[in-house]
Amino acid sequence: MVNKRKIFNDPVHGFINIPYPILYDLIEHPYFQRLRRIQQLGFTNYVYPGANHTRFQHALGAMHLMEQAIAALRSKDQKITEKESEAVLIAILLHDIGHGPFSHALEKSIVPDVSHEILSELFMQELNRQFSGKLDLAIEIFSNRYPKKFLYQLVSSQLDMDRLDYLRRDSFYTGVNEGTIGSDRIIKMLTVANDELLIEEKGIYSIEKFLVSRRLMYWQVYFHKTVISAENLLVKTLLRVKEISANGTEVFSTPGLRFFLYPEVEIKSLLKNPDPDKRKILLDQFASLDDSDITVSAKVWAGNSDKALAMLSNNLVTRKLYHIEVQNEPFTNKLTDLYTEKTIKYLNIDRSMKDYFVFCGEITNSAYQTGDDQIKILLKSGKIVDITEASDMFDQRVLSRTITKHFLCYPKGVIS
Amino acid sequence: MVNKRKIFNDPVHGFINIPYPILYDLIEHPYFQRLRRIQQLGFTNYVYPGANHTRFQHALGAMHLMEQAIAALRSKDQKITEKESEAVLIAILLHDIGHGPFSHALEKSIVPDVSHEILSELFMQELNRQFSGKLDLAIEIFSNRYPKKFLYQLVSSQLDMDRLDYLRRDSFYTGVNEGTIGSDRIIKMLTVANDELLIEEKGIYSIEKFLVSRRLMYWQVYFHKTVISAENLLVKTLLRVKEISANGTEVFSTPGLRFFLYPEVEIKSLLKNPDPDKRKILLDQFASLDDSDITVSAKVWAGNSDKALAMLSNNLVTRKLYHIEVQNEPFTNKLTDLYTEKTIKYLNIDRSMKDYFVFCGEITNSAYQTGDDQIKILLKSGKIVDITEASDMFDQRVLSRTITKHFLCYPKGVIS
Amino acid sequence: MVNKRKIFNDPVHGFINIPYPILYDLIEHPYFQRLRRIQQLGFTNYVYPGANHTRFQHALGAMHLMEQAIAALRSKDQKITEKESEAVLIAILLHDIGHGPFSHALEKSIVPDVSHEILSELFMQELNRQFSGKLDLAIEIFSNRYPKKFLYQLVSSQLDMDRLDYLRRDSFYTGVNEGTIGSDRIIKMLTVANDELLIEEKGIYSIEKFLVSRRLMYWQVYFHKTVISAENLLVKTLLRVKEISANGTEVFSTPGLRFFLYPEVEIKSLLKNPDPDKRKILLDQFASLDDSDITVSAKVWAGNSDKALAMLSNNLVTRKLYHIEVQNEPFTNKLTDLYTEKTIKYLNIDRSMKDYFVFCGEITNSAYQTGDDQIKILLKSGKIVDITEASDMFDQRVLSRTITKHFLCYPKGVIS
Amino acid sequence: MVNKRKIFNDPVHGFINIPYPILYDLIEHPYFQRLRRIQQLGFTNYVYPGANHTRFQHALGAMHLMEQAIAALRSKDQKITEKESEAVLIAILLHDIGHGPFSHALEKSIVPDVSHEILSELFMQELNRQFSGKLDLAIEIFSNRYPKKFLYQLVSSQLDMDRLDYLRRDSFYTGVNEGTIGSDRIIKMLTVANDELLIEEKGIYSIEKFLVSRRLMYWQVYFHKTVISAENLLVKTLLRVKEISANGTEVFSTPGLRFFLYPEVEIKSLLKNPDPDKRKILLDQFASLDDSDITVSAKVWAGNSDKALAMLSNNLVTRKLYHIEVQNEPFTNKLTDLYTEKTIKYLNIDRSMKDYFVFCGEITNSAYQTGDDQIKILLKSGKIVDITEASDMFDQRVLSRTITKHFLCYPKGVIS
Repeated sequence: MVNKRKIFNDPVHGFINIPYPILYDLIEHPYFQRLRRIQQLGFTNYVYPGANHTRFQHALGAMHLMEQAIAALRSKDQKITEKESEAVLIAILLHDIGHGPFSHALEKSIVPDVSHEILSELFMQELNRQFSGKLDLAIEIFSNRYPKKFLYQLVSSQLDMDRLDYLRRDSFYTGVNEGTIGSDRIIKMLTVANDELLIEEKGIYSIEKFLVSRRLMYWQVYFHKTVISAENLLVKTLLRVKEISANGTEVFSTPGLRFFLYPEVEIKSLLKNPDPDKRKILLDQFASLDDSDITVSAKVWAGNSDKALAMLSNNLVTRKLYHIEVQNEPFTNKLTDLYTEKTIKYLNIDRSMKDYFVFCGEITNSAYQTGDDQIKILLKSGKIVDITEASDMFDQRVLSRTITKHFLCYPKGVIS
Repeated sequence: MVNKRKIFNDPVHGFINIPYPILYDLIEHPYFQRLRRIQQLGFTNYVYPGANHTRFQHALGAMHLMEQAIAALRSKDQKITEKESEAVLIAILLHDIGHGPFSHALEKSIVPDVSHEILSELFMQELNRQFSGKLDLAIEIFSNRYPKKFLYQLVSSQLDMDRLDYLRRDSFYTGVNEGTIGSDRIIKMLTVANDELLIEEKGIYSIEKFLVSRRLMYWQVYFHKTVISAENLLVKTLLRVKEISANGTEVFSTPGLRFFLYPEVEIKSLLKNPDPDKRKILLDQFASLDDSDITVSAKVWAGNSDKALAMLSNNLVTRKLYHIEVQNEPFTNKLTDLYTEKTIKYLNIDRSMKDYFVFCGEITNSAYQTGDDQIKILLKSGKIVDITEASDMFDQRVLSRTITKHFLCYPKGVIS
Repeated sequence: MVNKRKIFNDPVHGFINIPYPILYDLIEHPYFQRLRRIQQLGFTNYVYPGANHTRFQHALGAMHLMEQAIAALRSKDQKITEKESEAVLIAILLHDIGHGPFSHALEKSIVPDVSHEILSELFMQELNRQFSGKLDLAIEIFSNRYPKKFLYQLVSSQLDMDRLDYLRRDSFYTGVNEGTIGSDRIIKMLTVANDELLIEEKGIYSIEKFLVSRRLMYWQVYFHKTVISAENLLVKTLLRVKEISANGTEVFSTPGLRFFLYPEVEIKSLLKNPDPDKRKILLDQFASLDDSDITVSAKVWAGNSDKALAMLSNNLVTRKLYHIEVQNEPFTNKLTDLYTEKTIKYLNIDRSMKDYFVFCGEITNSAYQTGDDQIKILLKSGKIVDITEASDMFDQRVLSRTITKHFLCYPKGVIS
Repeated sequence: MVNKRKIFNDPVHGFINIPYPILYDLIEHPYFQRLRRIQQLGFTNYVYPGANHTRFQHALGAMHLMEQAIAALRSKDQKITEKESEAVLIAILLHDIGHGPFSHALEKSIVPDVSHEILSELFMQELNRQFSGKLDLAIEIFSNRYPKKFLYQLVSSQLDMDRLDYLRRDSFYTGVNEGTIGSDRIIKMLTVANDELLIEEKGIYSIEKFLVSRRLMYWQVYFHKTVISAENLLVKTLLRVKEISANGTEVFSTPGLRFFLYPEVEIKSLLKNPDPDKRKILLDQFASLDDSDITVSAKVWAGNSDKALAMLSNNLVTRKLYHIEVQNEPFTNKLTDLYTEKTIKYLNIDRSMKDYFVFCGEITNSAYQTGDDQIKILLKSGKIVDITEASDMFDQRVLSRTITKHFLCYPKGVIS
């Protein structure tokens, strides 16, 4: 008999137990195992070399925090049945199963129709077929159709276990220790009232700290200008491949990637096909794709006869990134035109290729989202208020303000 | 020959070197050694049992960070001579040497005339006498009379090495990990322009994080309501002793404490006496006082014939703290009168003793201080701005707002 | 109603819960609260300034590990009832309650008749009286009279929770990170067969690591030569006081210490008195003694008219420790005589005082104890063997060999 | 101008500086950048999911420790010139540059002629060509031809910076905290006498700890039975591909891998070719190979028409590992024959394929190597002795004994 009481060693959380046998079986499934080959942060390791952790680790970590959250809420007499507990653990384990390699870059280039959110739910449904309906409740919770709404909030909200794990994990692996959050303490402060996930009043400072750490991680890691530069280099590389292949020109690609570059059937129609067997074709193809397909393809493209593709791919593989400038105001046309002209000369490329080498873009973020999904505090008085009201440090207008930054990329060496 | 290249093991910073022989000699001096017997956080260990670290450790830690800060500034071509380096290290090593046991409580009760800031400078002057003027430059920097003002700012400002060490150390020893600050990174971001200590623009997020962590430490540790309760219990105990001894009644005290309870000469006059030999009498007496004098005395007072003193002292020793309520508005007289009446009955004490057992007070703090001592950012453009201007997260009015909380203390059991 | 679900923050283990109300009540008791005033490692902070942690913290930490051990054993279907669980937690919480200040030094000087092991049990019996017999089972386990022997082994054996906590805690606070042990993993590896506490086979490497770390802690911390020097200085100081007071000469002492210096009744007879009220006199006196009594007394003795006492005490307070030499062979009489003569001249002391200033001693330790209390491994085959047999790294004769080192102390400056 | 004062964030060591510009240029070189795509521990992440760190990080980490070692030795008045310092940093940075993906598995299957040690030196020579001889001294040190032998020992010996970094790093990323070593302290204890790298006497316990931790890492991580099982699955998969391709049958492979599967010229002759331009062909081919080539190829092979290859590859990709048994004695032929017969039936494979599915092997290790490369201790007396002589814990015969374990692999499910 297989021992289903396996323990994982996690550098972030220590020992991680697998509390239900079905979780073990799901982890063993090839759809889940593939997450071992997909890094959580894509090309962020071009800036933070330690950031090679995978979506596999993150999913286990989020499941571990969920187990702690369930225990914390139960200790405050919040009723959660064993069935619900199992289901919410499944939901968090699989919440990211629809992620492909370098998701953000691929969604912006070759698979624009296939968002990871939709895919995650399709994968869950397919797994539910294979597991004879044992994921019914998990899917209900995941898609927010289950009456106890707070269970959904544990899976998806501003304080969900996904976020608590990835912020701590990304901070740990990048070595940006300042970004670390007190996930243990935040979880101890969770409570439920009126079927809503809340934070006890004495947790206010932990939440303030969480919001500031999150913001720090955004600007120092996720939106680090060199990370933005690297991600855009991948997007431009893939766009060039797509353009070439759209002309019917044969370009090398790994079999896994080929399906998406030269699709024999329309992906959109597969995606929405009512026949699960048809949808499974897409899922299996998607599941065969991971980071290695992009890496191998880029290495081969570096020798392609298309000069632009060869240059872009070579730059990607050898980490010759665009120079990137970031500022609060948009860049003027005058400036970008000037840089474009210089670049055309410097690289000796055809004018039609210019947008692959000089381009602008935007980064936007807000430290706190308003709307339905607010962080709410249960005051000792019993009153429920928004964190921005409970905290005397933050002004809601300031906190929820969307920050937009503008960037301009161009090849290094153009401006000397 | 004595090896003056001693290395200290510090749980917070790792190995701490002693870069100059005079630092070693100062550490060996009895005035400095006594800091081993004075805890950094007084009765905070009644709430966080791990917080038993001493002012001795903190002084070494601050010196260690200063060494790093000097190296960081020098690596950016800021000139700091060896003489200045030695002096600023002496200044930070001795910055707290005037602290006595439970400073805040003693300053509020038996030694109201003797602030630790004044004492620190007096101790330095006396050490300078004993070390034949070798502390001249250190004292100049410490008292902000040295032309290079940024050296003073390293010793005393909102980003001084004192603060960077104590926030990290207090967070470490209390186990409030969320309060930890990125001292390494902040130090790497230090720079100087126009003789002013500044932070490089890319350090903005670290400073935001620092301000929020600092705030968290204030409300979760330094102003934790049980800590406030314990400190006030000590103040009330000492006030009662003082009142009794002022009447000439003999009360036990350790010899070290006795000098301050029954001073034979006026302390104020000693303090300001132009004759250093006279001042030395006070310094030696003060140096003989540490945490153990308070602890031993309180244990003996618990058997005193004065009922109030016996109760207060016994409560202090056995950690029977006041119940404490905290709120944003002042407590009404009506309420405090009610509690007072109940307490008089409950404890069966004389009405004249009431203020020792039921009382109100205030706690105030602001996350950021405006005025001369602001945290300033050096933008890439060369412009220097205040952190509240550079950060898009904080609103200066919100950040520098003074928060006042009100507390009410009364014996446990009075309200059942 | 008092909230008995208190949580402690521990820098070593994180959050510590109090699983049973009686544990909370015991922690609140003055006998237990006094452990806040007794440092775990005495004068070790003269070498490792971070080592100011208390026996209070250690007791909570050991209780926390015990809770984990119970959970680990139960998960392997080892039956432990709720009553047993509570009792074994009480036993470990109180296992060190008989410790006084600087136990080892005091047992070697002024209270030679009162070992902390005996006192711990007397304190438990007295607490059992006050708690109406609720500690019966805990005492049975503590004194190894309970049928399930493995519960006793959790409290007292080479792998007990006491040891697991103190090794990790002492390593943490001294900053000697190398000494850290994998207490989490060792606890996961615990198992029981034939009513004996065992380690699963795959835990062999963790045990090897534990034994080496333990040994490292012994020689690098507990037997660090400067620690030995400081402890002997305290012993010599107390012996001198005892000698003086034995003559009837009046010497200052805090009231707490006075009882033991000038006992009005014989301590031994109190200790063994069948009347618990009589024994309680001793316990209450003992409970009033803590680190502060020694510190205050030593500060006063530094001004004593007895020259030897004054010198010893002053050295202790200002950390002017003996020079100490350590070697594998005993020191020759010739050498110690030579040093003695030089010291008598150097300090200008009476010859009768010589043993207070120049003396030899021994330190002995073995990495592993043989006998009843061995560490046993449960092989996958079901066989139970000693760790030295299971490990291919250690040779039992080598491992269990007693190492003896010899030291010689004399005042600094005597040999220049 | 490019800023060559770049700082790397490392989760293990914190900030890593690049002390010389040439180090920066070497790191930028495509030969070095490719190390970002080669994991340090191959399939160890099939057991420890956190172990995704790369050879790139390790090389930077080892360089960082080397900088510390240089500073430590210089502080003890050991002369190391700036030129030597730069060279030894280059040598350690590049010491592993010859590593390919899954080195051990590839060396046992498709590239048996190409050891990473030889390749590292070839890569250095080629880089030296490209950098106009600036690596001359580094190569002299690396190949132990430089007069100051201790510099070589810092790069390659039982206490080299390679080992100190990888043990700490592997322990960190696997989460096997017990394996952590005190690299900081060991480096502080380094010294040189008679041109030999030594450890000061007081570092003995740290070395004992180092040896035990190293041993723990071997058996718990590097030789973990599931890691052995996964590595052998890769070896068997590659051997099957090689066998098929040796027959001239066309099998998919990425272009990077193809060169080694279907070499057009003999690799051995390229390797030893006196013409550096010829050798460069091999180096460039080798440099184009990384983990992604193996992963992509295995995913495609899982659909190969060769049943054995398809099964092996599919097992590798979906982590269906062999069941593995480990014991101290060799497995009997009788047993392996029995398992083989059962497997042939169970998998319904051709008898000729049996060795791909059922096989035995050995793991050997010794905790300490004797011979030239011993760890030597400088006693206070000036005498130099081997660690096994200096330590009273270890018996050299026991410590240096080679441990051999035998394993047997067969498909899961064969024995039910």
